[in-house]
Amino acid sequence: METLEVLKNRVSANKFDTTRKLSDDEIRELVAWATEAPSSANLQPWRFIAVTGQEEKERLKGVAYGQQKVADAAVTFIVLGDLRAAERLADVLGRSVAAGILPQTMADGLVRSMQSAHADPQKARDEAIRSTALAAMALMTAAADKGLVSGPMGGFDPEGAKREFAIPDRYLPVMLIAVGHPAPGNWPRKPRLTVDEVLTFHDGKDLQP
Amino acid sequence: METLEVLKNRVSANKFDTTRKLSDDEIRELVAWATEAPSSANLQPWRFIAVTGQEEKERLKGVAYGQQKVADAAVTFIVLGDLRAAERLADVLGRSVAAGILPQTMADGLVRSMQSAHADPQKARDEAIRSTALAAMALMTAAADKGLVSGPMGGFDPEGAKREFAIPDRYLPVMLIAVGHPAPGNWPRKPRLTVDEVLTFHDGKDLQP
Repeated sequence: METLEVLKNRVSANKFDTTRKLSDDEIRELVAWATEAPSSANLQPWRFIAVTGQEEKERLKGVAYGQQKVADAAVTFIVLGDLRAAERLADVLGRSVAAGILPQTMADGLVRSMQSAHADPQKARDEAIRSTALAAMALMTAAADKGLVSGPMGGFDPEGAKREFAIPDRYLPVMLIAVGHPAPGNWPRKPRLTVDEVLTFHDGKDLQP
Repeated sequence: METLEVLKNRVSANKFDTTRKLSDDEIRELVAWATEAPSSANLQPWRFIAVTGQEEKERLKGVAYGQQKVADAAVTFIVLGDLRAAERLADVLGRSVAAGILPQTMADGLVRSMQSAHADPQKARDEAIRSTALAAMALMTAAADKGLVSGPMGGFDPEGAKREFAIPDRYLPVMLIAVGHPAPGNWPRKPRLTVDEVLTFHDGKDLQP
């Protein structure tokens, strides 16, 4: 499908066809598309847990304020950001060096500057959320292209999710995304702020103070 | 262009054709596509400052560790997240109520729960980054569809950007995105972690501890 049509037609879905599953390969492909997103210094802090079993999805629903879509979707992803991604950066960038894309000295500089920045836990957290959300949007865009619908959720209990799904402390649960085939009854697209309400030119003087 | 082709071909660009500008209308259209992204409770915390003048771009480069793409791109967006977005939610959701999409009681409930959650500054910050990054990915995807290239940047001085561009304190500078026509010499796509390195099924037991 055409890109702009996909961006325009994507809606945040609540209603999923509970009779239609996704294969592990279909789920893997969605995650592969997510990883096409950019990240600071190619840090790739994103991780995904695909929750597909009915009992598991009910358990996840229990730490997501009972949102039924968590249990109804073919898969609900727990999307995580690695708070310690900078520790892995030498390995990650080593692949760009091996591919002849990045000089070793530049890789070393990026590792040093990113590890220094992420010594500040707030910066590590900001980056874990930022890059992981870029990947989440790529995942939802690819899903829409395939005729699937997605329901992103920021409202859930991250500590409960970590406990119930054996998620190590280094990972921050950033969002949940339910993905599957649609059932009837999804909301239409909700109105957006106009461009004039969200864009200014030159500086921030005209932004709502 | 086809969606998946666009996701696959997008690269983080450093080299921009300094002779080719974008019109204000082209910039407005990119932001309109960004706003098609989802956000928690339709909060839409994203704001954009389009920096287009040469002197302005040089000033922005000065608070972005001298990254030349900031000055070379036709436009560099300062992408902001509103830390006080919950205060505006009644207005935002009122439009969904007026459009007959959302019942008033549900809008009221969302406003209450979001304002209560965002009384915690960390939650407001997380949400400002998360939803704004979703919009940023939509913007870069739309730009790629139009044959433009984009260079997202997490590394810059947010306090310096606020000072130089008169950005009110309620807005968190989340990232910069340089957008324009490409010049020769951009990096190829850098290698990604494999799907098996970022995806697990069922729970987090197999994630790197």
